[in-house]
Amino acid sequence: MQNKKITVRCPATVANLVCGFDVLGMCISDPFDIMELELTDDGKIFIQETSCYCLPTDPALNAAGAPLLEILSGLNTGIGFKIKITKNIKPGSGLGSSGASAAGAVVAADHLLGNIFSKAELVRFAMAGEEAACGARISDNVTAGIFGGVTLIRSNTPLDIVPIPSPELFVTVVHPQIEVKTSYAREILKKEVLLTDAVKQWGNVAGLVAGFMKNDTGLISRSLEDVIAEPLRSKLIPGFDEVKARCMGVGVLGGGISGSGPSVFMLSKDEATAKAAEEEMKNIYNKLSLPHYTYVTTINHKGVEIIKESI
Amino acid sequence: MQNKKITVRCPATVANLVCGFDVLGMCISDPFDIMELELTDDGKIFIQETSCYCLPTDPALNAAGAPLLEILSGLNTGIGFKIKITKNIKPGSGLGSSGASAAGAVVAADHLLGNIFSKAELVRFAMAGEEAACGARISDNVTAGIFGGVTLIRSNTPLDIVPIPSPELFVTVVHPQIEVKTSYAREILKKEVLLTDAVKQWGNVAGLVAGFMKNDTGLISRSLEDVIAEPLRSKLIPGFDEVKARCMGVGVLGGGISGSGPSVFMLSKDEATAKAAEEEMKNIYNKLSLPHYTYVTTINHKGVEIIKESI
Repeated sequence: MQNKKITVRCPATVANLVCGFDVLGMCISDPFDIMELELTDDGKIFIQETSCYCLPTDPALNAAGAPLLEILSGLNTGIGFKIKITKNIKPGSGLGSSGASAAGAVVAADHLLGNIFSKAELVRFAMAGEEAACGARISDNVTAGIFGGVTLIRSNTPLDIVPIPSPELFVTVVHPQIEVKTSYAREILKKEVLLTDAVKQWGNVAGLVAGFMKNDTGLISRSLEDVIAEPLRSKLIPGFDEVKARCMGVGVLGGGISGSGPSVFMLSKDEATAKAAEEEMKNIYNKLSLPHYTYVTTINHKGVEIIKESI
Repeated sequence: MQNKKITVRCPATVANLVCGFDVLGMCISDPFDIMELELTDDGKIFIQETSCYCLPTDPALNAAGAPLLEILSGLNTGIGFKIKITKNIKPGSGLGSSGASAAGAVVAADHLLGNIFSKAELVRFAMAGEEAACGARISDNVTAGIFGGVTLIRSNTPLDIVPIPSPELFVTVVHPQIEVKTSYAREILKKEVLLTDAVKQWGNVAGLVAGFMKNDTGLISRSLEDVIAEPLRSKLIPGFDEVKARCMGVGVLGGGISGSGPSVFMLSKDEATAKAAEEEMKNIYNKLSLPHYTYVTTINHKGVEIIKESI
């Protein structure tokens, strides 16, 4: 008998969304990983990576494997999973590579098991994948990946997820090929911030949420300002200030660092502007002789998506 | 010839809305001041206070007079205003008493002048009233008074006002008769806050805005948490912790300090709960032998309202 098998598309995600440090996330359509998950009856998890990123295949250490271990430990059955991951989201890009694996694995597994978990439960399982890959149970990328669209983590403990309706916007992403360690990007943040800066930030976060929900691109644009992390973290990304200035110059709504970087994203109302921003990004990094990838994509309102299923 | 004259209702406002320190405000229906404004041709501003709060009648020092001085200075005409204020919102209550005078004066004056200003311009004029009364050009109360409903000040400089659609909710207010100086309530706040606390706060602010816009009372309730100002300011208000605990006990959504206090407000889904909260408040302050006023009212979506007009 053939095992039940499913293939899912696991999209990249942009954490923080400029002013929403540690609370906002956004799912985008491109890049994405492809993951195949097969239900087995040997009680084990077997991982095959078809990309060459040397990711650990020990389930406990793998972003897709660890959440499945948690799911299986609660089920008390003899079932197992065989995972095949084709990774296109580069680890360390700031585009939620481990989050995509974790989110994809739990959505696929849940579907194979007969949709027995809520999305919030899937987020909790997926956080085990972030812990395996990054050492911390961060939730913003996996939440955006599982729910799709723009998501707010109102609170981490207890976990309180708020999907934020958002308009159709275009997203331009540049991933300069440098490494920014998430742990270092967190270390350089100040443990204490000025109350006046914090007030500015929560004015902007509230404005961004209202802007998305009202479909008010002017308000979205004005709210895309980060006085907390960007002033410190942008220094780790060569060309950041120029990328931002030139993209604003061609008419993007705004943007900033994706997650803890090094990828930088910009939001636009239309595709022509998003493509013009891409050109600016390419020119700047070509001038800096810094290898880079760019993407012109959209907000992905679906999140992890099943693209193939066989008995 | 009789002068043009108008009478407006100037409602109380609740600044901060628990988690939105310095950015959120809410207009309520009760208590309110009544203000009569008469257009004159002597180029002067004459103020008459019919209440006994000994408020200054020098226009430059009066919350209603100072904004009118600013309006007149820009008009270059010989017109003046005669103001009669019946004040029911006690100065120093934390319910936006000076803001109500300032908001009422500019809305009334604008109407008498033929509606020549935008609401944002009226807010800017009204801020002169806050400066006259409180020494700072604060905008949250006057914005809520002029726009009505729930308002977000995304940014003070430049001024960026975002009206936040909100459901019909009931508001219970208790004003214990003690004095909390706004300047002191600001002084006791820390100049720096923990980044982890700031993140909690902007998660809550974003959640509260989303909750209002989605009409999700559960989310509103969970978001009404203040980890920045309340832990410090609540100590200035006798009975605060008990008021909050007992009101939560009878089923309010949540609440906290109104502005910098001493008034405390609670939001409820229905009038019965709002009245039960009022009973709890009365019992607590009676037990403490502390004179107090209470109000059971609603979110006021209209803001300053014209109630009478002649010629």
